[in-house]
Amino acid sequence: MSRTLLVVAHPRGDSLTAQVAERARRRAEAAGNSVDLMDLYAEGFDPRLTPQDEPDWQDREKRYSPEVHAHMRRIEEADELVVVFPVWWFAPPAVVKGWIERVWNYGFAYGRSKPRLAGKRMLWLGLAGHAAEYYESTGLGKALELQLRVGVSEFCGVGESAVRLLYGTEFSGIPETLREARAREVFAAAEEVLASFGGVGEGRVVPAAVPVGA
Amino acid sequence: MSRTLLVVAHPRGDSLTAQVAERARRRAEAAGNSVDLMDLYAEGFDPRLTPQDEPDWQDREKRYSPEVHAHMRRIEEADELVVVFPVWWFAPPAVVKGWIERVWNYGFAYGRSKPRLAGKRMLWLGLAGHAAEYYESTGLGKALELQLRVGVSEFCGVGESAVRLLYGTEFSGIPETLREARAREVFAAAEEVLASFGGVGEGRVVPAAVPVGA
Repeated sequence: MSRTLLVVAHPRGDSLTAQVAERARRRAEAAGNSVDLMDLYAEGFDPRLTPQDEPDWQDREKRYSPEVHAHMRRIEEADELVVVFPVWWFAPPAVVKGWIERVWNYGFAYGRSKPRLAGKRMLWLGLAGHAAEYYESTGLGKALELQLRVGVSEFCGVGESAVRLLYGTEFSGIPETLREARAREVFAAAEEVLASFGGVGEGRVVPAAVPVGA
Repeated sequence: MSRTLLVVAHPRGDSLTAQVAERARRRAEAAGNSVDLMDLYAEGFDPRLTPQDEPDWQDREKRYSPEVHAHMRRIEEADELVVVFPVWWFAPPAVVKGWIERVWNYGFAYGRSKPRLAGKRMLWLGLAGHAAEYYESTGLGKALELQLRVGVSEFCGVGESAVRLLYGTEFSGIPETLREARAREVFAAAEEVLASFGGVGEGRVVPAAVPVGA
């Protein structure tokens, strides 16, 4: 049985983000995984790094705050990490950024000759208000992908990682009567990403953009 | 007389970041500017966006929290904005990200046919631990520049904006005896950036990377 750490970051429990996360939870459980749901807002996680959690480059064994060590344990216990978040200003919300800053700390997530997170798989799943074309034409999609996949996951030696965005998730320009159908499209796209991520049961990442047989 | 809003984001008042910010303050004041120092940590700014500060796409006039409106006023009153921050995980700290999320809100910073921040100038000044080569070879420097300049400043119609990084600001690999000299180099680089930003008195941005006369 695999263990999934499902991180969610939205201030409202009825948000589209929360609904996508709920689908990820159900899918993982249906595949026989145990799921640790980490709702950063609901748990009251404070994203502000203080000196207590500042890395000490002379001491990989530094004791950080008890809260941070509790979070580290939850990461350690997971086989796969799925972070579901709204894309705000073309990046994850502050609460996610601060979670990385405080918890993915020196001596735990990086700074070891043998990375402790090497055996894990990770999916960053973002709900983006704008259309895919916008992210592509501005380069902001690629920038976000680089920051999370290379700048965080690979930096920490996470074995397999992927960033996937669900586009057009801000519905204000869509007539009320069409929103339910649009939400279903978003959920379908989310299910597709989760299926291709696999782990959620099937055990491997299928990179979506790799051409097959060519 | 110009007004400078100087935003600083570091949990320690003795940090290199704080020292660079202090230089920016002195330079602006020496040029006759008035300076509003906004130390996000010292002021206890909470970067977590809650539903009270969530944009309402149907209402550009939404009343956000009093704290957010107070921050908006300080931005409105400024002619130039200078944000001094440590680069953590190839991006600004959570406290800066959350400041953007909460304060640079719909109807204020964007969503108007005539952008309210159009007449302002903005400098993002980051202290980066790694060497310049690292940021260049990975593309993470360009990603950060794009997110802040295009994704925030230009998105909000800020007239002139630039992102500048001071590299190699993490000294743990440097012998104690050489650190003071290294700090002086960082401060000199900071002064150079601030001088080319100008505004801090001289009134215009000189983009550092534009070839002259060719």
